[in-house]
Amino acid sequence: MPILNKDMTLCISLAARPSNNGTRFHNHLYGQLGLNWIYKAFAPADIAQAVAGIRGLGIRGAAVSMPYKEAVIPLVDHMAPSAAAIESVNTIVNDNGVLTAHNTDYSAVANLLASRGVPARLRTAVRGSGGMAKAVVAALRDAGFRDVTVIARSEEAGRALAKQYGFAWAPEYDGGAELLVNVTPIGMAGGEDADRLSFTREQVQAAQAVIDVVAMPAETPLVRAAREAGKQVITGAEIGTLQALEQFVLYTGITPTPEQVRAAEEFMRSDAVG
Amino acid sequence: MPILNKDMTLCISLAARPSNNGTRFHNHLYGQLGLNWIYKAFAPADIAQAVAGIRGLGIRGAAVSMPYKEAVIPLVDHMAPSAAAIESVNTIVNDNGVLTAHNTDYSAVANLLASRGVPARLRTAVRGSGGMAKAVVAALRDAGFRDVTVIARSEEAGRALAKQYGFAWAPEYDGGAELLVNVTPIGMAGGEDADRLSFTREQVQAAQAVIDVVAMPAETPLVRAAREAGKQVITGAEIGTLQALEQFVLYTGITPTPEQVRAAEEFMRSDAVG
Repeated sequence: MPILNKDMTLCISLAARPSNNGTRFHNHLYGQLGLNWIYKAFAPADIAQAVAGIRGLGIRGAAVSMPYKEAVIPLVDHMAPSAAAIESVNTIVNDNGVLTAHNTDYSAVANLLASRGVPARLRTAVRGSGGMAKAVVAALRDAGFRDVTVIARSEEAGRALAKQYGFAWAPEYDGGAELLVNVTPIGMAGGEDADRLSFTREQVQAAQAVIDVVAMPAETPLVRAAREAGKQVITGAEIGTLQALEQFVLYTGITPTPEQVRAAEEFMRSDAVG
Repeated sequence: MPILNKDMTLCISLAARPSNNGTRFHNHLYGQLGLNWIYKAFAPADIAQAVAGIRGLGIRGAAVSMPYKEAVIPLVDHMAPSAAAIESVNTIVNDNGVLTAHNTDYSAVANLLASRGVPARLRTAVRGSGGMAKAVVAALRDAGFRDVTVIARSEEAGRALAKQYGFAWAPEYDGGAELLVNVTPIGMAGGEDADRLSFTREQVQAAQAVIDVVAMPAETPLVRAAREAGKQVITGAEIGTLQALEQFVLYTGITPTPEQVRAAEEFMRSDAVG
């Protein structure tokens, strides 16, 4: 950690209940790369004034989390394709007062679907209908997936999400999918469903690939079950790290090595629950 | 320096050309006192949006320097007596979104005049007519000084400042003062007048006390001349440290020990010009 000085470039995050992950991940990379940068999470008192502060203080970048991902849309100058694709923002980049919104959750899922070669012909079930489900469903649609069912107990939210991307909705999963995607908090460390599976072992066995967006712990019960069954797996930890890395690159213009990213991720996780 | 984390309380400074002094002084005290706080200087792109950011991000405090000391007045909620006394702000304290403006330059000079027992009956000459001269002249007036002459080449600025506080103006100093006050950059390290004296040795010899607001170097040519002549001296370094300490106390509610302040000041100066 360098001695703090006036010339450090600041990046921040904006969330009602910030985690320590971004602060630890980004600062660790700054340290490894010798960048005179600093990163700090904020729980804003007022989102419009917080975004004004990004401009006014010359803050280089801001991660945006719940519940501000849509609220910031009217506050920025431009929507990059990743944010426009799902009308949701998780990243703001400040170029001399011009704010451009991105969504690296969307782009990270899209990039992992492509780089891992998950076949777009797979029949897919996505459990969940929140903000992250939107990023996943949009990425699937844009990757060419055509047979996708959104599984959500809330008919209103589930139908709306499915309809927006031309997919089907169902209240319960009744089998048959080759790609299973969990976008609920089931399996999250510290949550009330930490030990549960969002799909049964039989459903996992019958599938070909599994994606879990839960990032803590890195090996969720669903991820473990999928690995044990020999399935192709994309974990929430991978999605989380890639989206944070994409933010890092958007802010700094520098792509760290995989080893540097791994070290930052380990440092981040060494402080975390689970 | 602690590992940066999401829960750190942020204080900032706002100046067109920030120095590193505040960042080093405050962070060093945070470290000594084990406070989970962080301090960083900013050169704001837009002062109104920067102050909005103080509210929006929940920034605890902000030092305000040139050229924003008057511009922030309509942006705060309350003016404390120190800021109201000179209609100039060098400190903003944020209490849950309510911004109160202070001026610790004024209060530091006022407190040093009192604690050092500089007699209010002294005939006084103040050289300078800028923002800091206003703080000094107001502190003299409020300490009971009655025979004060503002020395300034600019008749307009000099007359306006003198008139505001019921004092006289003169374009040049022609002797006779018992208290000499320098509020010009003469003697400042790195400046074009770094080696000059704002009052002659003869004038210093004829006086009883000398105040120099130039803080870098700690021992300016004027301060050295006054010490050599055995005069009572208040240095700009003393004023600067006390005003920064008053900011620290306003933000944190904690009064560090004199040893802690001395260590922070030494750390601050170890990086500075001069």
